Amino acid sequence: MAGLAPGERRLEGAVAHYLGRVLRLRADDAFVAFDPASGREAPGVVLKTEPDAITVLFGALRDGTARPLRVVAWIQGLAKGEKCDGIVRDATELGANRITIATTSRSVVRLDAARASDRQARWARIAQEAARQCGRSEAPPVDGPSPWADALARAPADAVRFCLWERATMPLGPALFGALASGAPLAFACGPEGGLEAGEVEEASSRGWAIASLGGLVLRTETVAAAVLGAVCVFARAFEP
Amino acid sequence: MAGLAPGERRLEGAVAHYLGRVLRLRADDAFVAFDPASGREAPGVVLKTEPDAITVLFGALRDGTARPLRVVAWIQGLAKGEKCDGIVRDATELGANRITIATTSRSVVRLDAARASDRQARWARIAQEAARQCGRSEAPPVDGPSPWADALARAPADAVRFCLWERATMPLGPALFGALASGAPLAFACGPEGGLEAGEVEEASSRGWAIASLGGLVLRTETVAAAVLGAVCVFARAFEP
Repeated sequence: MAGLAPGERRLEGAVAHYLGRVLRLRADDAFVAFDPASGREAPGVVLKTEPDAITVLFGALRDGTARPLRVVAWIQGLAKGEKCDGIVRDATELGANRITIATTSRSVVRLDAARASDRQARWARIAQEAARQCGRSEAPPVDGPSPWADALARAPADAVRFCLWERATMPLGPALFGALASGAPLAFACGPEGGLEAGEVEEASSRGWAIASLGGLVLRTETVAAAVLGAVCVFARAFEP
Repeated sequence: MAGLAPGERRLEGAVAHYLGRVLRLRADDAFVAFDPASGREAPGVVLKTEPDAITVLFGALRDGTARPLRVVAWIQGLAKGEKCDGIVRDATELGANRITIATTSRSVVRLDAARASDRQARWARIAQEAARQCGRSEAPPVDGPSPWADALARAPADAVRFCLWERATMPLGPALFGALASGAPLAFACGPEGGLEAGEVEEASSRGWAIASLGGLVLRTETVAAAVLGAVCVFARAFEP
């Protein structure tokens, strides 16, 4: 929640709903509140619940602890309608530390500067909201829309990089398995709903991205992020204490 | 597509859009068409494209080949609004072979018999549509809504079974890793947006389901299926030739 500070506070609206209805907290229940904007958190205890409000006592602020364990960057081809909203939400929940939206040849949507700026602000809000809901102490920054080549170039230099392409011959699993075991940062890139052009795949390949397939079934672009980042979430822990 | 048969055929509507606009097929391009209802497929070649139609020649029908490699059952706590629609779509894309919707203590929605039947028919249509779009030769059956205990009892007897619970202390990764390596069928159960009651978790545990956590971040119920089945999709191939 925004504006987190020590002391007693009566909360209403979405935060009260979340604590009272979703988490079902009652008087004397303890919880941890996050301020995604600052990455700070505070212990809290419920003093009183009312139908549409909840009064809580916050303790001292400290640095947030519920950070994803591993650096994971997600580059997403700009998709139609509200698809990128859902992808930003899923990627945040599933631990992405940086999200970049990339314009590609087959991105149907073309955004002028003003609309691009609006869209970016909306994605940032969605990431902050998703971080709060899933208990992350910091929301991932959302960049873009940027040209595909620029987005690729901005991935962490030390990351093991995978460009997901439905026509790739190398399956993602075994290679990702090796990367997870190494503990290295990861970066993934995925096209929009129309897929990537061969030239865009070559661009990624020439920059050191491994071109990998998710298997025989063709996924919608909005499923790819959840599936791949879900795999990282589930299996990263198999390699950590 | 429904009613698949050998010979020349002029296609319009959604199928033409899918072949022409989504797959971007042109004259002489080859493809494989599936009939999700029958599980049969046929090779096809494009003869002619028009703005809103596409003429193709189908070859002989054969049993569908694009089946998921592994038996995976997904039990989903009945969630609000259209969440189960998206979960059925994701689970189908990500290879679930059977989907069961279960009513739980915290399922907010209560469906009378007529509405339950309508809903089940809608989920079945969504599974068939998703199977067609992702190239699966058969759609998974969608059962329910059934009481939680009945849904658990219906999982394949030889499956390695995981009940996902945000308060579990055992992480899913290492145990799923072992199950994937064994090649055994898998079954997963997941609560609705309010989570599972302790009694429901005990019910699963007493029936041999391992109670497993996805990690420190709390996922929305509609993300869990994509994340877990994505992990199975990505890593099942690490154990197969």
